[in-house]
Amino acid sequence: MAGDMSTSASEGFEPPALGEPYLLTPGPLTTAYSVKQAMLRDWGSWDADFRTMTADLRRGLLALIGDARGEYDCVPLQGSGSYCVEAMLGSFVPRDGKVLVLANGAYGLRAAQTMKYLGRAHTLIDKGDYLPPRGDEVGAALDADPSITHVLAIHCETSSGILNPVAEISQATYARGRKLLVDSMSAFGAVPLEVGQIRYEAMVSSANKCIEGVPGFGFVIAKKSELEAAKGNSHSLALDVHAQWATMEKTGQWRFTPPTHVVAAFLAALKMHAAEGGVPARGARYAKNRDVMVDGMRKLGFETLLSDRWLSPIIVTFFCPAHEKFVFSRFYELMKDKGFIIYPGKLTVVDSFRVGCIGRMDEHVMRRVVEAAAASLAEMGVDTAAPPASAIAERAKLAA
Amino acid sequence: MAGDMSTSASEGFEPPALGEPYLLTPGPLTTAYSVKQAMLRDWGSWDADFRTMTADLRRGLLALIGDARGEYDCVPLQGSGSYCVEAMLGSFVPRDGKVLVLANGAYGLRAAQTMKYLGRAHTLIDKGDYLPPRGDEVGAALDADPSITHVLAIHCETSSGILNPVAEISQATYARGRKLLVDSMSAFGAVPLEVGQIRYEAMVSSANKCIEGVPGFGFVIAKKSELEAAKGNSHSLALDVHAQWATMEKTGQWRFTPPTHVVAAFLAALKMHAAEGGVPARGARYAKNRDVMVDGMRKLGFETLLSDRWLSPIIVTFFCPAHEKFVFSRFYELMKDKGFIIYPGKLTVVDSFRVGCIGRMDEHVMRRVVEAAAASLAEMGVDTAAPPASAIAERAKLAA
Ligand SMILES: Cc1ncc(COP(=O)(O)O)c(C=O)c1O
Ligand SMILES: Cc1ncc(COP(=O)(O)O)c(C=O)c1O
Repeated sequence: MAGDMSTSASEGFEPPALGEPYLLTPGPLTTAYSVKQAMLRDWGSWDADFRTMTADLRRGLLALIGDARGEYDCVPLQGSGSYCVEAMLGSFVPRDGKVLVLANGAYGLRAAQTMKYLGRAHTLIDKGDYLPPRGDEVGAALDADPSITHVLAIHCETSSGILNPVAEISQATYARGRKLLVDSMSAFGAVPLEVGQIRYEAMVSSANKCIEGVPGFGFVIAKKSELEAAKGNSHSLALDVHAQWATMEKTGQWRFTPPTHVVAAFLAALKMHAAEGGVPARGARYAKNRDVMVDGMRKLGFETLLSDRWLSPIIVTFFCPAHEKFVFSRFYELMKDKGFIIYPGKLTVVDSFRVGCIGRMDEHVMRRVVEAAAASLAEMGVDTAAPPASAIAERAKLAA
Repeated sequence: MAGDMSTSASEGFEPPALGEPYLLTPGPLTTAYSVKQAMLRDWGSWDADFRTMTADLRRGLLALIGDARGEYDCVPLQGSGSYCVEAMLGSFVPRDGKVLVLANGAYGLRAAQTMKYLGRAHTLIDKGDYLPPRGDEVGAALDADPSITHVLAIHCETSSGILNPVAEISQATYARGRKLLVDSMSAFGAVPLEVGQIRYEAMVSSANKCIEGVPGFGFVIAKKSELEAAKGNSHSLALDVHAQWATMEKTGQWRFTPPTHVVAAFLAALKMHAAEGGVPARGARYAKNRDVMVDGMRKLGFETLLSDRWLSPIIVTFFCPAHEKFVFSRFYELMKDKGFIIYPGKLTVVDSFRVGCIGRMDEHVMRRVVEAAAASLAEMGVDTAAPPASAIAERAKLAA
């Protein structure tokens, strides 16, 4: 352990301050201390210093999508990630458009609910808790309904941790002359989404995910032609991406008071992202976090919801052991006592919990997570190596 | 000066860090260092620790409105203040309602524009740049149009700095059985808005104004009966105040990722607000800031847009001296060099600038602001003591 810690520290992965737990959650997550230190001053939002920060932020994010032809632009927006999803749908889908929403978890369903609020036409492919929407299904749905103008895909569906096959979804969409919108909230910055590889009109993500900033704004990256065409579409002043973009282009300012401190933290986080080696390096660290953690948890007898093929490097869902002495709330507290905040599950059918792989931590931390889980199980008197046979059979059905 | 500084420091008004200017702006504003230090850790948004913070925040804000009968509740909302104005209009005005918007500046006009986005009926009393909407005008407008259900008033119209007469507007509104919504963004926490004194259904403000937090969320304070009745009204998922409230009541959590660090800073700011003596003390400090600053600026020859009766303790608009050597952008830079960020004007007819009185500063700082203005004028070669006679005549007309 001591050895792990010092290796960590020498790599610049200082642990959280004394008494502060690691957040094994899909954001807010554990951020670097230096990211938080960037918030120790105030900025005037009209002042040139802050306008420069806004320009740096937009440029820094655009650099991540490999937009060689300069066709895209980045528009940060106050609020949480869900605000950006709603802003994207309300701004890029014309009032007479129709959206095919691909859902396999809570965030896809939320996008469908957003369409209901907007009162615009939509249809849903709901794959339940953990099955991926595939390209051929999307193609068939588009063939069957020529009035569909847009497809909305969730890149990593954080509620299960599944990495959805956006490349084949994109192909099916554009092969039929439709347009793709992507919610890459929890994946962007760690899972590639380069416009040369995967075609899309717009995507959204937020400050407190794989770039490792603190929460307070999200951002839209969209084709400039779409940003221009979005004029007049939005149902909301606050969530009008066109208006936010047009003002930023003209004045360099956000339309309304920006979260200045959160922006400063994000710029510090973006610099660390670049220094680490950008998207490939960030993705590799998270994948290693996942591999070490999943491997260790499986050895303890925990089972993942998903087969390896669909596991994202973002967050992993485990079944709660079907052991009478396993109570999630107690496991949560025991893990917290040991310095690790885990996350409840979001499955509708069976009890589960989630462990995030993102944030300012590395494989050494993940080894300690596994040790903490082992100790917590022992304290609860749970022996996961021997789950009741009935539970095994039940899971086998689910995970098939 | 040295004497002033040490008095300041002994009162706990530490100056901003070296090289960081004071923000004489209406938010983001200069906050206490300890407020920013509260952001130096990370919180899981699902965790009980953060749920306690959310409960404290709601309770702390409710304590400011003197709601003896417990009829109101507080709902924080991610995003900037404009999001809260839109959320209030979209959630509390039924789809078949009609709003009388009282405008005398940019924020009133923005509320009217918001109603256009919502596609709900509204009518506008536009008093131009600086005249207050009065109770009798509101009464006459309501008498003339029985279909009006709600009145929207701006408490302090920050674009001129005028403190609007919300008490008489409220009386005129309720005398006719209509409902009042208040945008108290820049006034709340320093100008009283007690429900026992001024009747209203809902009001909004944000984190980075008179409570002296950092920007990243706003809040709605509304009658519980209105919060309940708001179900199904909202045009937007993200801005649905009813849904945000219902989730908070049920789970203690925000519906979507909250700006955890901004919330932590706000709690620290709320504590300082209480320690200072609450709304009366905060209002008294700002009023003193204004008096010292306006007095000094007038001695330098600057004229205020408004007569004393309408000057708020929040922000003051000055005419740009009609002197050929006065160039605002240069004045701005000279002031910034001296450690003070001022704010451009928002009047539509004449050139102006604004100086804020809110934030973590006191009269000693305001004296230095006046000294800096004097020095900046001298550097520009402007002698405001003797403006051209034509300018005097022109202003006399405007300020009448
Ligand atoms: C895929 C996805 N979409 C949308 C959201 C919503 O983001 P927020 O909670 O910031 O509103 C999340 C949050 O984790 C997410 O993972
Ligand atoms: C009276 C008033 N209303 C609304 C707003 C908009 O707030 P924000 O800039 O946070 O969106 C402001 C901002 O200063 C304001 O002063």
